[in-house]
Amino acid sequence: MIDYFDRARRLLVGRPMRSEALGQTLLPKRIALPVFASDALSSVAYAPDEIILMLSFAGLAATQFSPLIGVAVAVLLMIVVASYRQTVHAYPSGGGDYEVVTTNLGPTAGLMIASALLVDYVLTVAVSISSGAKYLASAMPSLAGYEVHVSLSVIAVLTLLNLRGMRESGRTFAFFTYLYLFAIVLMLVSGVFQSLTGKLGTAPTAQYDIIPDPAYQVGLVGVGGFFLVLRAFSSGCAALTGVEAISNGVPTFRKPKSKNAATTLLMLGTISACVMLTILYLARNTGVRYVENPAESLVLNGHPIGSNVQVDPVMSQLAATVFADAKPLFYLVAVVTGLILVLAANTAFNGFPQLAQILAHDSFLPHQLYNRGDRLSFSNGILALAGAASVLIIAFDAQVTRLIQLYIIGVFISFTLSQLGMIRHWNRELAVCTDGRRRLQMRHSRVINMFGFVMAGLVLLVVLVTKFTHGAWMALLFMLLIFLVMHRIRHHYESVAAELEVPDYVEAARLPSRVHAIVLLAKLHKPAMRAISYARATTPSSLELVTVDINEDDTKALLKQWKDADIPLPLTVLASPFRDITGPVLAHVRQVRRQSPRELVVVYIPEYLVARGIESILHNHSATRLRARLQYVPGVVLATVPWKLDGTKDPTKLVNKQIIAPESRTKNDRHH
Amino acid sequence: MIDYFDRARRLLVGRPMRSEALGQTLLPKRIALPVFASDALSSVAYAPDEIILMLSFAGLAATQFSPLIGVAVAVLLMIVVASYRQTVHAYPSGGGDYEVVTTNLGPTAGLMIASALLVDYVLTVAVSISSGAKYLASAMPSLAGYEVHVSLSVIAVLTLLNLRGMRESGRTFAFFTYLYLFAIVLMLVSGVFQSLTGKLGTAPTAQYDIIPDPAYQVGLVGVGGFFLVLRAFSSGCAALTGVEAISNGVPTFRKPKSKNAATTLLMLGTISACVMLTILYLARNTGVRYVENPAESLVLNGHPIGSNVQVDPVMSQLAATVFADAKPLFYLVAVVTGLILVLAANTAFNGFPQLAQILAHDSFLPHQLYNRGDRLSFSNGILALAGAASVLIIAFDAQVTRLIQLYIIGVFISFTLSQLGMIRHWNRELAVCTDGRRRLQMRHSRVINMFGFVMAGLVLLVVLVTKFTHGAWMALLFMLLIFLVMHRIRHHYESVAAELEVPDYVEAARLPSRVHAIVLLAKLHKPAMRAISYARATTPSSLELVTVDINEDDTKALLKQWKDADIPLPLTVLASPFRDITGPVLAHVRQVRRQSPRELVVVYIPEYLVARGIESILHNHSATRLRARLQYVPGVVLATVPWKLDGTKDPTKLVNKQIIAPESRTKNDRHH
Repeated sequence: MIDYFDRARRLLVGRPMRSEALGQTLLPKRIALPVFASDALSSVAYAPDEIILMLSFAGLAATQFSPLIGVAVAVLLMIVVASYRQTVHAYPSGGGDYEVVTTNLGPTAGLMIASALLVDYVLTVAVSISSGAKYLASAMPSLAGYEVHVSLSVIAVLTLLNLRGMRESGRTFAFFTYLYLFAIVLMLVSGVFQSLTGKLGTAPTAQYDIIPDPAYQVGLVGVGGFFLVLRAFSSGCAALTGVEAISNGVPTFRKPKSKNAATTLLMLGTISACVMLTILYLARNTGVRYVENPAESLVLNGHPIGSNVQVDPVMSQLAATVFADAKPLFYLVAVVTGLILVLAANTAFNGFPQLAQILAHDSFLPHQLYNRGDRLSFSNGILALAGAASVLIIAFDAQVTRLIQLYIIGVFISFTLSQLGMIRHWNRELAVCTDGRRRLQMRHSRVINMFGFVMAGLVLLVVLVTKFTHGAWMALLFMLLIFLVMHRIRHHYESVAAELEVPDYVEAARLPSRVHAIVLLAKLHKPAMRAISYARATTPSSLELVTVDINEDDTKALLKQWKDADIPLPLTVLASPFRDITGPVLAHVRQVRRQSPRELVVVYIPEYLVARGIESILHNHSATRLRARLQYVPGVVLATVPWKLDGTKDPTKLVNKQIIAPESRTKNDRHH
Repeated sequence: MIDYFDRARRLLVGRPMRSEALGQTLLPKRIALPVFASDALSSVAYAPDEIILMLSFAGLAATQFSPLIGVAVAVLLMIVVASYRQTVHAYPSGGGDYEVVTTNLGPTAGLMIASALLVDYVLTVAVSISSGAKYLASAMPSLAGYEVHVSLSVIAVLTLLNLRGMRESGRTFAFFTYLYLFAIVLMLVSGVFQSLTGKLGTAPTAQYDIIPDPAYQVGLVGVGGFFLVLRAFSSGCAALTGVEAISNGVPTFRKPKSKNAATTLLMLGTISACVMLTILYLARNTGVRYVENPAESLVLNGHPIGSNVQVDPVMSQLAATVFADAKPLFYLVAVVTGLILVLAANTAFNGFPQLAQILAHDSFLPHQLYNRGDRLSFSNGILALAGAASVLIIAFDAQVTRLIQLYIIGVFISFTLSQLGMIRHWNRELAVCTDGRRRLQMRHSRVINMFGFVMAGLVLLVVLVTKFTHGAWMALLFMLLIFLVMHRIRHHYESVAAELEVPDYVEAARLPSRVHAIVLLAKLHKPAMRAISYARATTPSSLELVTVDINEDDTKALLKQWKDADIPLPLTVLASPFRDITGPVLAHVRQVRRQSPRELVVVYIPEYLVARGIESILHNHSATRLRARLQYVPGVVLATVPWKLDGTKDPTKLVNKQIIAPESRTKNDRHH
C-alpha cells in the first residue's frame, strides 16, 4: 500500500529535493514579478468590472463616473505601495505583515492579522479562478455554464504544480505573465490610439440601456447615491489586493532581497494603476455595459434581453471592440487574461503555505505545517488552501460578484494593522538611533506609513460599512473562527510544553527498580518463540509467559506444547469468564504494577505483517485492541515483535533506495 | 471514545455474560419450537401464495389444481422430516448438515453445503421479512408502498435483540408463535366448519377473472403446462425451508437433546403440512385470486382493475373471508402472521452465526467469527447476516416473488448432499456394528435416508431446471463466490500455520547475541527522559540516543540540553537532506543490523496519549509513520513508551470495573 502510494506520488510531484537545493529556488526579479505580482496585475480583470457594475445600479448615467472612482483607487494603490516599500526594507525576513504586527503590536494583533490574511488568501484563489473561468468562457462560449467545473479542475492542476515546487512554477508562469502584459498593453495602446484618431468602435453591449435598481431611480444623488459611490469604490479596491504578497515573500527574492522586492513592488503598482485607469477610460468611451443581472437589467428597445445573451467581462468586451478586425488578438486577450487570473491564484499558493509555516513555527497551527515537503514546498499548506478555495467556489457557484463581497476586508484589516505596526517600529528605532542621516530617513518613512495608516483605516471603515450585510460578515466570522482555533492550538502546545519540561534531570534519570517482562501467547509458534527469545535476550529481572483461557481445548494444547518444548519459563493462564482477551491481561498487568509500583513492566506482543491488506482481516485483531488499552496503564512499555508472513514485501525498501543517497549517512554526527 | 462506544453498547445489548451462563441459554421444547420452527411454520404464509400465483399464469381454471400440488409438497415435507429425524439422532453435536457432509463426504462437499446454507440463511431473512411486511401492510394499508423501509427497520430490531443473546429472544418470541398458531388454527377450523355447513363466503378477490399469460393461453396442457406445474411445485417447496435449522441447532436443546429435537421436528412437520393443505383447500373454495401483476392480470367485467386495488396475501384474504363478521380476528391473523414471519427470520439469526462459528473453527471463515460476543451470542455473524439480507431487500425492492426465485435451491442442495452423507454414515456404522437390533435400526434409517436422497435429488433437478433463468443462477453464483472465498481463507490459514510451526524448539529458543537499544528523541522532555530511563532499566548491551536533524536550531537546542543534563549516553544526530524522519532512522537501524546481524535492536519511541481525539492531529505523526515502516526491518523490536498528557482519562478503567469481577483473578493458574 505504502509502496503504490509512494510511486504515484513520485510520478505526480517528482523526485524529492535536498534541503541544500533551497538556495536554488530563490527568484530573480524577472521571475519574481510574474510569481508575486500576478495577483495585483490580474485584479484589473475584475476590479473595473465591479466599479461599473455597482454604479449601474443607479442607471447608465451613473457609470460615467467610473474613471473618477478609478482615479481614487489608483491614488490609494500608490499610497499603499509606498507604505509597503518601507516595510520591505525594514523587515527583509519575509514575515511580512504578520512579522511587522507581531513584533510591534504583540501576538494578539499578530494573530488577528494572520487570520485575516489566511482568509484573504483563500478568497484570492476563489475570486481569481472564478473570474478566470469567466474570461475563458468569453473566448470559448461552450464553457459558459461550467464555470464551477472549470474552476475546480484549474485548482487541481495548480495544486499539483505547486506540490512539485515553486521554482518550476515560477518559470512556467513567467512566460504567460509577460504575454499577458504584452497583450493588454497592445490592446490599450491600440484603443487609446483609435480613440485619439476617432476610430474607436462601440462595445458589443453599447446598444443596451440599463434599468436602474428601484432604490436608485433618481441616480447618484442624496445619501443613497453617496453610499453607492462608496460601494463602487470599495469593490474597486479589489485592485489593491496582492500588494502584501510581495512583502510576505521577500526571502524568496535574490539578493539584495529588500531592494529587489521594493523595486518589484513599485513596478507592479505603476503598471496596475495605469492599466486600470486606461481600461475605465476605454470602457466609458466604447459604451461597455456590465450589470449584475444582464437578463433583467439590460434592455433593448424597451425589452429585457433575457438570458440567451452572454455579457462578457469588461476586458473581453474592450478586446472585442478594439480588435474587431483582428479576431485572433481578441482571443489572445481573453485567453491570456483567463490564464493570468489563474496565475494570480498561484500567488496565494506561494504566500499561504509560507504564512502557515510561520504560524506553525509559532505554535498557532499544527506543527506538521512547519515542514517543507520533499520537493521543498509546503505540501500540507498547499492542500489546505486548495481545499478551502474549492469549497468556497462550490458554495458561491463561482460567481465573482458574490465572492467579491467577502473579499478585501481582510486585506484592509492587514493594511491598517501593518501600517500601525510600522509607525511603532519607526518610533522604537528613532528612540535608539543617533545617526542624523538615518534618523531623517526614518522620519520620512514614518510619515509615509502614518499617511498609509490613516488612508487604509478610512477605507477599512468604508469597506466595513458598505459590505458588511453583503457578505463581509461571513469573512469576519471565518476570521474570528480561525483566530479562536489558532489561539486554542497555541494554548494546547504551550500547556503541553510546560507539562513536559523536565524540572530536574537527575530525578528524571532515576531508573525503575526492576524490569518484569511479560510475553503474551496464544500458541507456541515461531512468532511466539521469537518474542520469547527477544524478551529473554533483554535479561529482565523476571519473565513470565501469559495466555488467556478463551477456549479450553486451545489452552490445553498450549500447556502441552509448553511442557513438550521444555521452556524454562513460568506460564500464567488467565481466566476469562467473558471470553475477552483485553480485560484479563489488563487486570493482570495492573496487579503486577500494584504489587511493585517501582517495577517496569514490558509487555511483548507478537504481531503479523501480512502480504496483502485484505489479509489483515484474518489477523492481529486482539493484538491491536490490547495495545490500544494497555498503553494507558502507567509504567508499561509495549514491545511489538513483528513477524513477516511469507510473501510479505518490505514496502520501505524500494522507497529508501530512492530517498537515502549513500553520502547522507556519512554525515551523521556521533556525540559522546 | 472507547468509553462512550462501550457505554452505548452496554445500553443496547446489555451487560456481558459469563461463559458458565451458557448452560442457562439451553432451550426446553416449548421454547425451542417457536425459536427453530417459526421458519417452517411461517412459510405457509407465502408458499401457498406462490403455488397459486404460478398456476394463475395458465388462467383461473389452472388454479383449481393447487391443492393437488399442495399434497405433493406435503408428502415431500414429511419425507424430508423423516430423513432429518435420522440425522438429529446420529449427529447430536449440531454441526447439522455441514457436519454430516464433511464427516462422510469430505471437506470439499462440506464447503459446498456450507456455501449453500449461508446463502439460504440470508434469503430466509430477506424472504420472510419481505413477506411479513406485506402482511403488516394488509392490516395497515398505510404501510403499503413502504415495504422496504418496514423490512429494514425490522432487521435492525432483530439484530439488536439477537446481539442481546438468544435466550431472551426465545422467550420474547415464544408468546407470539403460540398466538400465531392459535389464530391460524382458529381461522382454519372456522373456515372448514363454515365450508362444511355451506356458510363459507367468497374472498375479496373472487369477483375478478384472470387473464392468462400469452404463453399459457391453452391452459395446463402439453410440455408448457407440465413445466408450469413443476414451477408451481418448485415454488411450493418453499414450505420445506427451515427443517434443516433444527438439525443445525441440536446443541441448544435441553437434554436429551436428540430426542427433543426429533420430536420438535415431527411436530412442526405435521403442523406445517396440515396448515398448508387446509389453506389451499379454503383458498380454492373461497375463490382467492393471487397473481404476479394484479393491475394487469386481474379483470372485472373485462377491464383490468388497475393499480389502485390492493391484492393481499392468501392468508389475509382467507382471514377477511372467514372473519368477515369478526374484524378484530382478521386483524389478529394479519398482524400475527406478519410477526411470525419476522420470527422466521430469527431462525436464521440463530442458525447463521452458529454455522459461521463452525466454519471459522475449521478456518474457512475469519477466526473472529469463532468467538461468542460478551452476551454469549455470535455478534459478528449476526451483523454479517443482517447486512447481507438488507442489501438483498433493497436490491429486490422487498418483492417476495422475485426473492423466491433465488430461494430453495440452496436448501435442496443441502438436503441432497446431507442425505447422501447419511447413507454413507449408515454404511460405515453397519460395517463395524455387530449388535443385531441396532443393525436393524440402522438399516431402517438408511432406507429412510435413501428415499430422502432420491426425492431431494429429483426435486433439486426440478428446481434447477424451472428456476435457473428466473434468478437461481444468481444464488448459485453467490454460493460459488462464497465457496471460493472460504477456500482461499482456509488455504491462507493453513499456509500460515505451516509457516509458523516450530520444527525445533531448542533452535527457536536461541537468543540474539547482544541487545542494542535506541531511544528516538526530538527534545529532552519528560516523555523522552522516561523512555531513556526505561531503556536503561532493561540494561541493554549498548544504548544510544538518536535524533534526526530536520531543523538546525532544534538540533542545536537538543545538543545543548543533552550536554547540560549531563546524560552519560551517546547521542547520534542523523542527517536528513530530505527533511524526512523515517528514512534516516530506517537507514541507521539497517546499518546497525548489517554490522552485527546477530544483534537485537530495540527501538524506544515515546508516544503521547491525548485527552481528546481531535488533539491527536497535533501530535504523534512521525511516531506512527516511523513504527509502520520500522516493523519491516528484521531483528527489530518496537518499544512504545506511552506518555499520558494532562487531562487524558484512562478509557479502560471504567470498562474494567464492569467486566472484571474480582473472583476472576483468583482463578488464574500459574504453571511452573
